[in-house]
Amino acid sequence: MGKLVIVGTVAFDAIETPFGKTDKILGGAATFIGLAASHFGIDAAAVSIVGGDFPQDYLDLLENKNIDISGIEIVKNGKTFFWSGRYHNDMNSRDTLVTELNTLADFNPKVPENYKDAEFVMLGNLHPLVQASVLDQMTTKPKLAVLDTMNYWMDCAWDDLMNVIKRVDVITINDEEARQLTGEYSLVVAARKIHAMGPKYVVIKKGEHGALLFHNNDVFYAPALPLEEVFDPTGAGDTFAGGFTGYLAKTGDISFENMKNAVIYGSTLASFCVEKFGSERMQELSSDEVQKRLMQFKNLTQFEIELS
Amino acid sequence: MGKLVIVGTVAFDAIETPFGKTDKILGGAATFIGLAASHFGIDAAAVSIVGGDFPQDYLDLLENKNIDISGIEIVKNGKTFFWSGRYHNDMNSRDTLVTELNTLADFNPKVPENYKDAEFVMLGNLHPLVQASVLDQMTTKPKLAVLDTMNYWMDCAWDDLMNVIKRVDVITINDEEARQLTGEYSLVVAARKIHAMGPKYVVIKKGEHGALLFHNNDVFYAPALPLEEVFDPTGAGDTFAGGFTGYLAKTGDISFENMKNAVIYGSTLASFCVEKFGSERMQELSSDEVQKRLMQFKNLTQFEIELS
Repeated sequence: MGKLVIVGTVAFDAIETPFGKTDKILGGAATFIGLAASHFGIDAAAVSIVGGDFPQDYLDLLENKNIDISGIEIVKNGKTFFWSGRYHNDMNSRDTLVTELNTLADFNPKVPENYKDAEFVMLGNLHPLVQASVLDQMTTKPKLAVLDTMNYWMDCAWDDLMNVIKRVDVITINDEEARQLTGEYSLVVAARKIHAMGPKYVVIKKGEHGALLFHNNDVFYAPALPLEEVFDPTGAGDTFAGGFTGYLAKTGDISFENMKNAVIYGSTLASFCVEKFGSERMQELSSDEVQKRLMQFKNLTQFEIELS
Repeated sequence: MGKLVIVGTVAFDAIETPFGKTDKILGGAATFIGLAASHFGIDAAAVSIVGGDFPQDYLDLLENKNIDISGIEIVKNGKTFFWSGRYHNDMNSRDTLVTELNTLADFNPKVPENYKDAEFVMLGNLHPLVQASVLDQMTTKPKLAVLDTMNYWMDCAWDDLMNVIKRVDVITINDEEARQLTGEYSLVVAARKIHAMGPKYVVIKKGEHGALLFHNNDVFYAPALPLEEVFDPTGAGDTFAGGFTGYLAKTGDISFENMKNAVIYGSTLASFCVEKFGSERMQELSSDEVQKRLMQFKNLTQFEIELS
């Protein structure tokens, strides 16, 4: 069982969907990643920054999930990163209403001493220089570094992004981002080009259409669970990444065959995330529920054809 | 092993894609369905109509694939149905350039006498009254009737479509058509509404995103094989339907578990169809190639998580 370092935002989100809206609730990439990874009984630490306005209750919540929060810096006279967005009717696109960086603007991540030898590192979506700084602080080369990013950094920090991408083993990215990163429409060709940038493993997230895992000429496809409705997709990609990395950290096995299982765990956890606003569903999720849903994923995808 | 009646167009297609264009080549729903079903060594008959301009070579080709063509009416002084279309760069949408109904305008399908007791019927995309006429001609109720249709009939023959849909066991339809048919965005909800229209099994085809099979509360998801490029999607849906129905006719087992296999066979055959123009790839496809690709589908989708 490997230790896991998670870097990412811990934030306030205010969300509007066709089903309703929220006030400021607990959000942020490191929150979703941490809540997902907490299902694997591993030692995980969140590295982030919040302001003095961040409720102790939220910190307690993370700590009660066995997430080490000693790497979450609290800036007493600062404010916590705040994002607000409104989803369109198809839930596949959204408008950002508010982005207040606040303390995040001066975020210098500090990996806790006892996590600098962690075997697993999950770099949540942040400025690529911040992601790189976490890798710089590791005293031993991690067994597996996983990076998530988004189109924003492709637009405004291309060189920094390329520099950190070439240092990681796995990239998780959505289909449109993969196309933007490579200029290729075909995801198969895009994955090959991303391999050439550095990562040996490429995970392309397709939302309701599932996720693809590429490694050289191998490919694995995990569907998303077909749902009556997606209540709120916020955090689903981060939850996927947390489930993926948490499972690998628990098993310590980074073979392609085991990464298939990791993708299924990521998809399973993400399928819960979208059932309620923000991280609400992930805060209350039991391991029994996870096991039942894994069975649904088996029924959804497994078949019995004898090959001659 | 059950006999299979296939009704659908046998046609000329002229296709333009970003990769090139063709003159008039062999196309039509019954052609694609028949070529796919021919991989299962079953007795299958195509019911269709062509003109005197239809080459004997094409008829020979179908017959050499063990497709009974006695139900293909040849109108000596008529012309064969002709469709021409141009695909856009993303290959997900197309413009129809030419539709000449020709002999198809007066098509009265005639099921061969020795196929009127067939256990399996595949109603390819045609006017719903033509599809219903085939069901009317069956002397014994088929074990399984499968229907494919398209949005055009929803626009101009709604009542007739509803009447034939309620008579079939399985409907195959694409995602946009399922949404139009039901007014529901969620495919899970759409499938439930289609169940209520009659079909106990609903297959929703999502192109590059695979296919979903619904039966009451059960659902199965088959991905499409991730491809470097889709050369020409023409006929892929029909090929899927032919593989699906052909496999069920061969095995005679219409349980949900076996339908999962049928969906995989349909997806496997469709993954070949898109590799060349029109039906060209399907005309030359060997069973060795099919077996190899089934193995790819296994590797693509199967995983080994032990559940507690």
